Amino acid sequence: MATREEVAAFMAEAFPESRLVIESCGNRSSTVSLEVSPTDLRPGGTVSGPALMGVADAALYAAVLGEIGIVPLAVTTNLSINFLRRPEAGRRIIGVCKLMKVGRTLAVGEVSLYSEGVSEPVAHVVGTYAIPPGASR
Amino acid sequence: MATREEVAAFMAEAFPESRLVIESCGNRSSTVSLEVSPTDLRPGGTVSGPALMGVADAALYAAVLGEIGIVPLAVTTNLSINFLRRPEAGRRIIGVCKLMKVGRTLAVGEVSLYSEGVSEPVAHVVGTYAIPPGASR
Amino acid sequence: MATREEVAAFMAEAFPESRLVIESCGNRSSTVSLEVSPTDLRPGGTVSGPALMGVADAALYAAVLGEIGIVPLAVTTNLSINFLRRPEAGRRIIGVCKLMKVGRTLAVGEVSLYSEGVSEPVAHVVGTYAIPPGASR
Amino acid sequence: MATREEVAAFMAEAFPESRLVIESCGNRSSTVSLEVSPTDLRPGGTVSGPALMGVADAALYAAVLGEIGIVPLAVTTNLSINFLRRPEAGRRIIGVCKLMKVGRTLAVGEVSLYSEGVSEPVAHVVGTYAIPPGASR
Repeated sequence: MATREEVAAFMAEAFPESRLVIESCGNRSSTVSLEVSPTDLRPGGTVSGPALMGVADAALYAAVLGEIGIVPLAVTTNLSINFLRRPEAGRRIIGVCKLMKVGRTLAVGEVSLYSEGVSEPVAHVVGTYAIPPGASR
Repeated sequence: MATREEVAAFMAEAFPESRLVIESCGNRSSTVSLEVSPTDLRPGGTVSGPALMGVADAALYAAVLGEIGIVPLAVTTNLSINFLRRPEAGRRIIGVCKLMKVGRTLAVGEVSLYSEGVSEPVAHVVGTYAIPPGASR
Repeated sequence: MATREEVAAFMAEAFPESRLVIESCGNRSSTVSLEVSPTDLRPGGTVSGPALMGVADAALYAAVLGEIGIVPLAVTTNLSINFLRRPEAGRRIIGVCKLMKVGRTLAVGEVSLYSEGVSEPVAHVVGTYAIPPGASR
Repeated sequence: MATREEVAAFMAEAFPESRLVIESCGNRSSTVSLEVSPTDLRPGGTVSGPALMGVADAALYAAVLGEIGIVPLAVTTNLSINFLRRPEAGRRIIGVCKLMKVGRTLAVGEVSLYSEGVSEPVAHVVGTYAIPPGASR
């Protein structure tokens, strides 16, 4: 297991350019936020699909690391996203992840993505992480 | 909108051979159960993938019909399933569906599948239904 | 590696009730067919989603076994299906699988599903198999 | 229908910051390339997941626009990606898209993503676009 501080420090070092914030992790879950920047926007004032996917991927990674400890070699193998509503350009994106399984070699989780302050999700993601053999628990 | 009784009656007429039971539907959700039969089993005493997918598909359909009313032409366009744990042969499969979006032309929902009486899900499904234009609401 | 005959014999023993036929496998691919029976049909004379998924799952399994040899413990972890066109009730379903990756712990493949004799696919599946550690190659 | 030049001009105007190049489109297919920049990289010298997804999404969009003409309101509804191999940092990413269905309201396609000059794909994507009612064809 790893604390929010350990996960945040590891991810800040691995992805120094990232603007993602690990708000919480632990107990098979995590919350990640993204302050939307101009490069994340799309015409019409919405947030790009890849920006949403980046939030979801980070939330899954944070939840997995919170559970299995800092394992740099864990990699996403599958990510499936459904776009549900237009995100609002002026609001942070919040990703709320729950892991459904943390097995010996695979972890599976879902992430609901929100425009901060809006109750209905803008997108929903299911993703799988491969855990390298011998990763500490 | 349609009640549980209306949805169950419609599905019983459309799929007369089905052993699926619509336990509840309404409020953008549904619960469906399947008494496992020998034809649903796999070697080692587990429940087949297609049987699980059938429960999830029915749960999505029931939740959609509960929301938009009896619309025979609604069709599944996409179904994605993650198998999480081995279902137990001797327990009913319970599918619990929540719709994440009911739009004008698409509905998207998720289904958690359980072996009855076991708290961790055996599989998780996300599916999309296409709603024909002009369907009553 | 395993030949078509070995894969077909293994699957016939594991799934004695199955009506699926392993037409070919090898070279990271397979072809599987299903003679459609009344229990596979849906109102309006089409083939059920779970029946299509069963063909795809068997095609993936046959292609994986053809590549890694007879490994009973290989299990599907993820299956995603897009339904593209209505299958015709009176035609066999043909599943054509190509593996995109056969790694040490995961194999990923795609399956195009056809109504026999019709050129456009009725559905498309992507699936992942987990390969148990130490499986022979 | 729209030509490669029309699609490229439309996407350049809609996404002025994009470094993606529409290499070809038409005949229900497209090819898109991305010159990898430092912001697309991940530790260890690989290309980020969101960068790969961005190439796939653009390839699907270009193929759809090539088929139905310039329809600004077409939106991605679902995208599922399998990561197969590590992309190489020093090579362009090439996305090759084939549409499997172009219906009245939905288009479905697959994209194989490559590190330029390497024969095995680094990732595979299946995506769905919703086409607004009344879009010209």
